[in-house]
Amino acid sequence: VEDEVLSLPGWDGSLPSRHYSGFVRSPESLRDASFFYYLVESEGQPDTDPLVVWMNGGPGASSLYGLFGELGPLQLDSDSLLVDPPALYYNPEGWQTQANLLAIDQPPPTGFSYCGGDVGGDMASCGNWTDEDAALENYKFLLEWVHEFPEFESRDLFITGESYAGVYVPLLADLIYEGMRGGETSLNLRGVAIGDGVARPSPKDSQWLHVQFMYGHGQVSTRLYEAILDTCTEAALRNNSYASMPGCPELLETMDTAIGDFYEYNLYDQCAHGAAALLGSLDSVASATVLRGGLNDYACGSDEAIATWVSRPDVQAAMHVPRGAVWNNVDGSWPEYKATASDLSSVYLKWMAGSAALRVLIYSGDTDPMITSFYSEEWVRALGFPEREPWRAWVFEHAGAELTGGYVTRFLTANAADGGAFDLLTIRGSGHMVPLMQRSAALSFFSTWIHGETYPRTGQGKHANKAPSIPAGALKGALASRSRVLNRKLELLRGLTAAAATED
Amino acid sequence: VEDEVLSLPGWDGSLPSRHYSGFVRSPESLRDASFFYYLVESEGQPDTDPLVVWMNGGPGASSLYGLFGELGPLQLDSDSLLVDPPALYYNPEGWQTQANLLAIDQPPPTGFSYCGGDVGGDMASCGNWTDEDAALENYKFLLEWVHEFPEFESRDLFITGESYAGVYVPLLADLIYEGMRGGETSLNLRGVAIGDGVARPSPKDSQWLHVQFMYGHGQVSTRLYEAILDTCTEAALRNNSYASMPGCPELLETMDTAIGDFYEYNLYDQCAHGAAALLGSLDSVASATVLRGGLNDYACGSDEAIATWVSRPDVQAAMHVPRGAVWNNVDGSWPEYKATASDLSSVYLKWMAGSAALRVLIYSGDTDPMITSFYSEEWVRALGFPEREPWRAWVFEHAGAELTGGYVTRFLTANAADGGAFDLLTIRGSGHMVPLMQRSAALSFFSTWIHGETYPRTGQGKHANKAPSIPAGALKGALASRSRVLNRKLELLRGLTAAAATED
Repeated sequence: VEDEVLSLPGWDGSLPSRHYSGFVRSPESLRDASFFYYLVESEGQPDTDPLVVWMNGGPGASSLYGLFGELGPLQLDSDSLLVDPPALYYNPEGWQTQANLLAIDQPPPTGFSYCGGDVGGDMASCGNWTDEDAALENYKFLLEWVHEFPEFESRDLFITGESYAGVYVPLLADLIYEGMRGGETSLNLRGVAIGDGVARPSPKDSQWLHVQFMYGHGQVSTRLYEAILDTCTEAALRNNSYASMPGCPELLETMDTAIGDFYEYNLYDQCAHGAAALLGSLDSVASATVLRGGLNDYACGSDEAIATWVSRPDVQAAMHVPRGAVWNNVDGSWPEYKATASDLSSVYLKWMAGSAALRVLIYSGDTDPMITSFYSEEWVRALGFPEREPWRAWVFEHAGAELTGGYVTRFLTANAADGGAFDLLTIRGSGHMVPLMQRSAALSFFSTWIHGETYPRTGQGKHANKAPSIPAGALKGALASRSRVLNRKLELLRGLTAAAATED
Repeated sequence: VEDEVLSLPGWDGSLPSRHYSGFVRSPESLRDASFFYYLVESEGQPDTDPLVVWMNGGPGASSLYGLFGELGPLQLDSDSLLVDPPALYYNPEGWQTQANLLAIDQPPPTGFSYCGGDVGGDMASCGNWTDEDAALENYKFLLEWVHEFPEFESRDLFITGESYAGVYVPLLADLIYEGMRGGETSLNLRGVAIGDGVARPSPKDSQWLHVQFMYGHGQVSTRLYEAILDTCTEAALRNNSYASMPGCPELLETMDTAIGDFYEYNLYDQCAHGAAALLGSLDSVASATVLRGGLNDYACGSDEAIATWVSRPDVQAAMHVPRGAVWNNVDGSWPEYKATASDLSSVYLKWMAGSAALRVLIYSGDTDPMITSFYSEEWVRALGFPEREPWRAWVFEHAGAELTGGYVTRFLTANAADGGAFDLLTIRGSGHMVPLMQRSAALSFFSTWIHGETYPRTGQGKHANKAPSIPAGALKGALASRSRVLNRKLELLRGLTAAAATED
C-alpha cells in the first residue's frame, strides 16, 4: 500500500513491524474531513491479533502523543533530543506486542487531520463540534478506513482511549454496536477500554472527591480537613451546594492555596514540565552524573520531544503528511468543541443488559489528581451492577519479581453468561497517562484484558504475566538508538572532564 | 590523623573532602564498647559549618546505609555493581554540601561497632539493651569522640536520624542538653531532626491511621472503607478497641488481604527488592534500552550494593576496620534490644518551654506506609503547641523549575523568642528514606533548616534554593565513575548487538 511507512528519522534500520500512515476521507463526511491515521501492525500475529483503536482526549489532543509517548513501539523523551535526528527508542512494553494499533487524530482538525483542502488550518477550520457530531464522523471514517484495509474489517475490534476519550469511545462504540445490530457493518466490536476517563460533564465540580484525594494523599492537614467536613459537610460537597454553606468557600480557598502547585496529571511528577533546562544542557548532563536506577520513573519530556519531532519535514514526509500541514494539538482548550453528551451510563447499561459479549474496562491511575480513582470508582458503582469479584490486588511481573499493579473489581452483568464483562481497575502509582507512567503494569493489564484472561492474583507466582522480549528485527534499531544517546552523553562527559582539567 | 580515609575502592582519585573513619572507645563505656564512626567533612566551610550526627534506626541498622545510600557524598546503587570495584557515584545533593557529617554505628554491635575485643561478634555480643542504656552509651561515645576531634567540641551540633532514631535522637540530645545545663560538656546542641520517626511505642497499632493511609491513597475500595467505618467505628480504631467490635476484625483482614503486597517503606516503590535479576544481567541491560529520564525516581539496589561493597577487604582496610570484622545490619529484628522509652513528648515539651534556642524538625515522606505523615502530624499536634504558621506548601528548585516539596507547619513555642522552633514538614512523594527517595527536596529543606532560614513559599521564584554544584575536586571522580558505568553498558550493548547479528 502506498501509505506504508518505510522508515522514520531517528530510528536506525527497518521498523519492528509494518507501519502505515496517511489520510482517509469519508465520502459521506459531514464537513469534507480528512482523517489522519497511523497504523502499527502487531509484532505478534498481525494477521490474527485484534485491531485496537486508540484515541487521546482533550478535546483536541493528537493521538500521536499516545502512540509516540505512551503505548506505541517507538517512543520519544527528553533524551531523544540529545541527538539529531532525535532518537526514537524501542518500547518492549508497548501494546503493539499484543495487537494492531490504529491511532486516529480526531475530530479534525486535531493533529494532522483537516477539513476541505486546508492542511494548514487552525482549530476553527472545521467549524463547530458536538460530541455526537464527532462520534458520527469517527464512525464514517472507520467504515471507510476498513474499506481501504479490508483485512481488518471483521477483525476483533477494541476501541480505547483516555481522558476526554471517556466520551469519544463509548459514543463511537455505540454507533458501531448499533451498526452491527442493524447489519450495516461487518465490524466486530469486542470491547471498550477507557483510561482516567471523563464519564459525565464537569468531573472537577465534585469538590468532595477533590478534598478526599488531596487529604487522602497527605496534601492537606488533618486539622483543615476536619474543619472542611464540619463546615462544608459531605452532603454539600457531594451535591455542589457547598457555596451556600457559611465559611465553606473560604476554607476551600485556604485549602487550595495551601496545596500550592502540582502537576495536574500526576501528583508526584517532578518532570518540571516546560523547563527547557532539562533538554540537553551541560547542567543536565552534570546532574546525570548521579546515576538513577529507579523502576517507578518514566520518561520525561515526551510532549516537547514529540512536538519537535513531528514538526520536522523529514518526519512528516515519512508519514505522508502534505507540505504546509499544521499539527494541531490542544488539550481541552478548544472553543469550537461543545461537550453535549449528558448520559453515558445508559450506553453501558444497554450493552451489558444485552447478549453481546462486550468487555468494558474502566482503568484509572491512582495518583492522577485530574480524574481520580475515587471518581472512577464512584461512577462505575453508580451503574448499580452487583460485584462478581470484589476489589482485590492484581499483580504483574517485573524484573523477575511479582509486583502489585493495583486493584480490580469485576461486576456481574447480564451479558456475563455470553462472555461480557465490566471491570474497574486501578494502577498503583500512575498518573493520567497510564501507559507512559507505569509501562509494565499497563502492558500487563492490557494484555490480560484483550485476551479475556483473569487478572493475576497476589501469590500466583512471578510468571503470572509473560515478560516482553525485543523482536530480533527491532533489537538492532533499539541498540543503535541507545548507543547513539549513550555515546553522546559520554562525549558531553568528556567535554566536562576537559573543562575540569583546564581549571586545574 | 591516622583515621583519615585516603581513598575508597570504586572512587577514582582524591575524595571530594576529608573523610575519617575508625573506632572510638569510651573509657567509661558500660560494656567496653568500641563505636565505629565515619566523618565526612563539609564540602563548604569545614572549619565553621555545623556538625551533624546521623543515625539510622532499626534497632540495628548501620548508619553506613544512610551515609552511602541516602545523604552522603558518595553513593552506591544497583548500577554500581556493573563494574569492579563497584562504582561510587557522586551525590551533588548530599548533606555534606552544608555540614560536617558524622555517621555513628550504634548501639554496638550495630554495623562495625563491637564490644570487648569481639570484632566478629553477632548481635548478642554486647548483651541486652534498653533505650536509656543506648542513649547513655551514645553520649559517652560523643564526649570521647570530640576529645579526639576537638575542633568540633563547641561547634554548632545537630542530632539527626530516621525511623527508630525517633527514639535514639531525642534521648541522646536530652543527655547533651542536660549536660550543657550542668556544665559537664561544652558540646553546643542547636537542634534535632527526625525523619519518618517513631515517637511512641508501637505506632503500627494505630489501625485508624493505617486505614486512613490506605484508603486515602486509593488502595481500598470506598465500599469497604465505608463498611469499616460503620462496623469498626473511628473511635474504636483510634483507641485500639476494635477487636471487640463484632465483624470488625474480619473486615480489617479482608482489607489487608485485598491490599496485597507493597514495599513497606514506600507505597509506590517498584525496585523489586531482593530481585537478583536487577543486578548487572544482560536482561537488565536489554530492558534499559528503554531510556528513562523521570526525575522522581531514585537509585534502586543501594541495600545490596552497600552490603557487597562494605564486605570487601579493600573497603574495610580503607575504613580502618580490623580483619575479621563483621558488619551487622539488622532492621528491627534484634531480640536483645528492648524498647523501653515510653514518653518522648515530655522531652520536647521541656526543651520548648525553656530559653534554649533549640530547633526541632519532624519531617515525614508522605508515601511512607510504615510511619505515615498522618502519624507524624497526629503526635506533633498532640504536643499542644499553637500554630505559628499553618500548614502550607514549601518549594524548591529543580532543573530550573520551582517544585512543591511538600508541606510545612510551624508551631509557636516559648523558646521561639530565643530562636527556638518546632516544625512539622512533609515531603511529597517520598517514602521512608527521604534523602534517598527525594534527594533534591531533602537537601533543600535540610539546608533551609540548618541555616535557620524560612522554608521558601510557592511563587518565591525558582531561585528560592541554591542549586548544588559539583566541587572541582569531585568533578573528575564523578565523571570517571559515570564514564566507567556508561562504558560498561555500551560494552554490554555491543555484546547484544553482536549476538543479534549472529542470529541473522
